[in-house]
Amino acid sequence: MTIYDEFAFIDKIKPNKIHNQQLIAGIGDDAALVGLPQDRDQIICLDTMVEDVHFTTKTMSPNQIGHKALAVNISDIAAMGGIPAYYLVSIAIPKTWSQVDVEAIYEGMHKLSEAYQVDLIGGDTVFSPGPLMVSVTLIGYIEKGKKLLRSNARPGDVVFITGTVGDSAAGLDLLLKHGSNYSYNNSETYLTERHQLPSPRVEIGCHLAILDRVSLNDISDGVASEANEIAKASNVDIHLDEQKLPLSNQLLHYSQERAMEYALFGGEDFELIGTTSATDWEVFQQQMVEQNILVTKVGSVVEGKGEVYLSTKGTLTLLEKRGYNHFK
Amino acid sequence: MTIYDEFAFIDKIKPNKIHNQQLIAGIGDDAALVGLPQDRDQIICLDTMVEDVHFTTKTMSPNQIGHKALAVNISDIAAMGGIPAYYLVSIAIPKTWSQVDVEAIYEGMHKLSEAYQVDLIGGDTVFSPGPLMVSVTLIGYIEKGKKLLRSNARPGDVVFITGTVGDSAAGLDLLLKHGSNYSYNNSETYLTERHQLPSPRVEIGCHLAILDRVSLNDISDGVASEANEIAKASNVDIHLDEQKLPLSNQLLHYSQERAMEYALFGGEDFELIGTTSATDWEVFQQQMVEQNILVTKVGSVVEGKGEVYLSTKGTLTLLEKRGYNHFK
Repeated sequence: MTIYDEFAFIDKIKPNKIHNQQLIAGIGDDAALVGLPQDRDQIICLDTMVEDVHFTTKTMSPNQIGHKALAVNISDIAAMGGIPAYYLVSIAIPKTWSQVDVEAIYEGMHKLSEAYQVDLIGGDTVFSPGPLMVSVTLIGYIEKGKKLLRSNARPGDVVFITGTVGDSAAGLDLLLKHGSNYSYNNSETYLTERHQLPSPRVEIGCHLAILDRVSLNDISDGVASEANEIAKASNVDIHLDEQKLPLSNQLLHYSQERAMEYALFGGEDFELIGTTSATDWEVFQQQMVEQNILVTKVGSVVEGKGEVYLSTKGTLTLLEKRGYNHFK
Repeated sequence: MTIYDEFAFIDKIKPNKIHNQQLIAGIGDDAALVGLPQDRDQIICLDTMVEDVHFTTKTMSPNQIGHKALAVNISDIAAMGGIPAYYLVSIAIPKTWSQVDVEAIYEGMHKLSEAYQVDLIGGDTVFSPGPLMVSVTLIGYIEKGKKLLRSNARPGDVVFITGTVGDSAAGLDLLLKHGSNYSYNNSETYLTERHQLPSPRVEIGCHLAILDRVSLNDISDGVASEANEIAKASNVDIHLDEQKLPLSNQLLHYSQERAMEYALFGGEDFELIGTTSATDWEVFQQQMVEQNILVTKVGSVVEGKGEVYLSTKGTLTLLEKRGYNHFK
């Protein structure tokens, strides 16, 4: 993209509506300026997506790239039990990308930002002599004193997972095989869209934030990796019941054989995995049933030294942390 | 860099000291969690540096790249009159970069963060199939209700500049000619270090934040560009007196001929340019004199339609906004 200048481009992507009334000055000065709520703590996260590392134009449209770049960050805020509020975008654009495609990235972010009431307040637009890179910083809030950290798990806790897992990895598998313009059937389209247009679980995170004590992770790197992070940070063991892991019919239809591999090690489902006391689990489960939201008890927390075991028909197997690691 | 994994690397760069006591959880969870001050507004900015676009390894050491990536952001907070508090780093690392060099980037940031009492609270570390990219998000605070925006200039204001301008561009010129390992004399070293290790003007920004009304920009793109931004945002004209622009002896010694070109269009000085009422200018100037900080009155604000004029021996010339534009 070389046809117009940075200043004209910024004017173009500047939102014309504000969701957070405490925004004092957004895009257009050295920095953004926001007023602060009195009864909240703040959550800040950042995720970067690189072309041909985290996505390819074969598997994702520009619109979907934008959606996902923001969604993975909203998911991190959800995993802290928070509500997203503001985002900043750093984008490095190669010459080979057209103006229309770059704008489509911003449109993908913008559409998702409308759904979650998040405001674009700044960023940086630079030229890339290499691949396209999109880095999003997201700022959110949570009620003062609430901490849904990985280190909160205690022996006796119930381990739960929201929605279904493994779909995104199966979807990516399909997209790598056939590309994004292939005529997928309904069941396959469900899987590819789970990969391309993930829905962060902000609403469920907020329900969890009301409970006394919750450990929580979003599933970006597969169930095995996320469960290990909670076990290690909390210095407890986690036992997962293989039979109880929530798998979609679409996933089982696509490959019954590899479904468990996708669920445990595939990642990018952006569902939530967490633990809470048996008492609070009852309360939470009831709320979810009333709202018709799928949440599944998948195991339990026991005393230990930070390991995860998979229980298969009564046999326990050590489940190691493998998942997506950019340097391997 | 491929020799160790992301998790070991994060353990390595995690700071072992906290400057801001309101930090509840930093690196190591889905997101960072911070408590919020009651009497402040928040400032957020983001700047990205790309290898071979914003710097080359011929002109900057890894340590200096880290210093500068954080410094340009601290400068943005200074230009809002704020105090920096937290930063997040997104880094995309090519295979060709060694572990030692990547760690040196973080050391450069860390050293500067100690000087400005800023805490590293998160980020993302990814592989780059292209150039190295460093993107820093910085969060800071300012007293509630204070706004040192570009749009604050009014007719009758004094225009001022901190320090000297043009040094960084001359330094870059030297570095592009001879590289960073050349034996520069003292005067030349002053110029190259002004390019490689800029000092953001946070302290001066804080003094300005006490005044009634101040418009302010940091000089990242040259005096001409920054003055134009203020003039346009405030819908006033700015007259700059060429004779009064603060140039260092080292710059004049290096090239009397090109000194003014460097000052007006060179950029990356990370000094501040701003305007305030004549009364407040007196107060501010007195404070700066007492602290032995150089601040120079370089012109005045008049009614107009957002243009900047350079006054040279009584003749006014339109000074257009040209400076660094990544897409040109």
